[in-house]
Amino acid sequence: MKVKLQEDVLKNQNLAASFNRKTFNAHHLFVVNLMSSPGAGKTTLLEETVKALKQEYTIGVIEGDLATERDALRLRRLGVATVQINTVGGCHLDARMVAKTLPEFDLKEIDLLFIENIGNLVCPSSYDLGQGKKVVILSVPEGNDKIPKYPVMFKRTDMTVINKIDLLPYVDFSLVQAEADLATINSEARLMSVSAQTGEGMEEWLDWLREGVKSCKEQ
Amino acid sequence: MKVKLQEDVLKNQNLAASFNRKTFNAHHLFVVNLMSSPGAGKTTLLEETVKALKQEYTIGVIEGDLATERDALRLRRLGVATVQINTVGGCHLDARMVAKTLPEFDLKEIDLLFIENIGNLVCPSSYDLGQGKKVVILSVPEGNDKIPKYPVMFKRTDMTVINKIDLLPYVDFSLVQAEADLATINSEARLMSVSAQTGEGMEEWLDWLREGVKSCKEQ
Repeated sequence: MKVKLQEDVLKNQNLAASFNRKTFNAHHLFVVNLMSSPGAGKTTLLEETVKALKQEYTIGVIEGDLATERDALRLRRLGVATVQINTVGGCHLDARMVAKTLPEFDLKEIDLLFIENIGNLVCPSSYDLGQGKKVVILSVPEGNDKIPKYPVMFKRTDMTVINKIDLLPYVDFSLVQAEADLATINSEARLMSVSAQTGEGMEEWLDWLREGVKSCKEQ
Repeated sequence: MKVKLQEDVLKNQNLAASFNRKTFNAHHLFVVNLMSSPGAGKTTLLEETVKALKQEYTIGVIEGDLATERDALRLRRLGVATVQINTVGGCHLDARMVAKTLPEFDLKEIDLLFIENIGNLVCPSSYDLGQGKKVVILSVPEGNDKIPKYPVMFKRTDMTVINKIDLLPYVDFSLVQAEADLATINSEARLMSVSAQTGEGMEEWLDWLREGVKSCKEQ
């Protein structure tokens, strides 16, 4: 049973977001929109997450990039259904692009769908993709000033994952400061810190995803 | 003698870019448009550059950010004339925003003007600010795949500065690969590698800026 798309959904961002959301809800599918600066480690976090969870869940991935199939290849190597979107220079994914990929998945079989957005801490925050949760990854080498300097992203996001904490000894970054800054901007947002590279903190992240899948199944 | 702005310049990006370029040329001013991902180290590189060159040249800085005056305060502390632009969520600087700041500088006195763009590896590449040279900073923790994955930025830029080379022992990044990838995309672009933090490689960068100032003076 494949998703069918109607003409008007592909013409209008808001219609497409609402179409995606209804489709995801109908399939009790937990969908995470993963955003960050270029190089914060979205794909590596995704690879490690897939390795840890693929025995528990059927996972799908939508990869957004300006160019290349590199990230999709990395995920396909792990045996998950992955569709690459190339925006050919476009700075964000929109809901129409996501809607167009849905017929390529067997959504009835999938429990957890990741949408890896374009590496950009600004534009993706303004586009609802119909996801269940928005997650922003901030890597410690980017520095502590990013939360106050890019408030729109952090204000509109459910979860902030501080990544690359294995680099904390070598760069100037305070987790306490990041928590305080986030609390000022978005009192409901959660924050957790991980190193996708070493595995530190990953259990908490995986548990948060498990919670999300569970609550979508029960809906 | 202050720059006077006309109504139409402030309404049209291309007119404003051409106005800025004429104004910079008339003042024999070397103008660098500094772009990168968030957290690649634009402001730190700028601070170290200003410290090294402020005895030789009169320097001005235009700081672009979505929010806060943080970066302008960092530069003003070093005694350079700095104007902060806040785009209030906007993902790039355009030539009209830059034109509006020009009356705040005494351009006749300035030799070297830096425009620090919004932290974004996508959108700023499409907006001509009227600058002399476009520089993109790529920091090693962002990873080697950024040049092929963000080709528009690297294709349209005169100089790629690889920053944070002090972190090379702790992350997976190859300078040789970066050079090869850049050569494929933009055979005329130059590449140099620095650590603004430790000072390594800075002399080559400073010499490139000195060349730029010299050639603008001679025009």
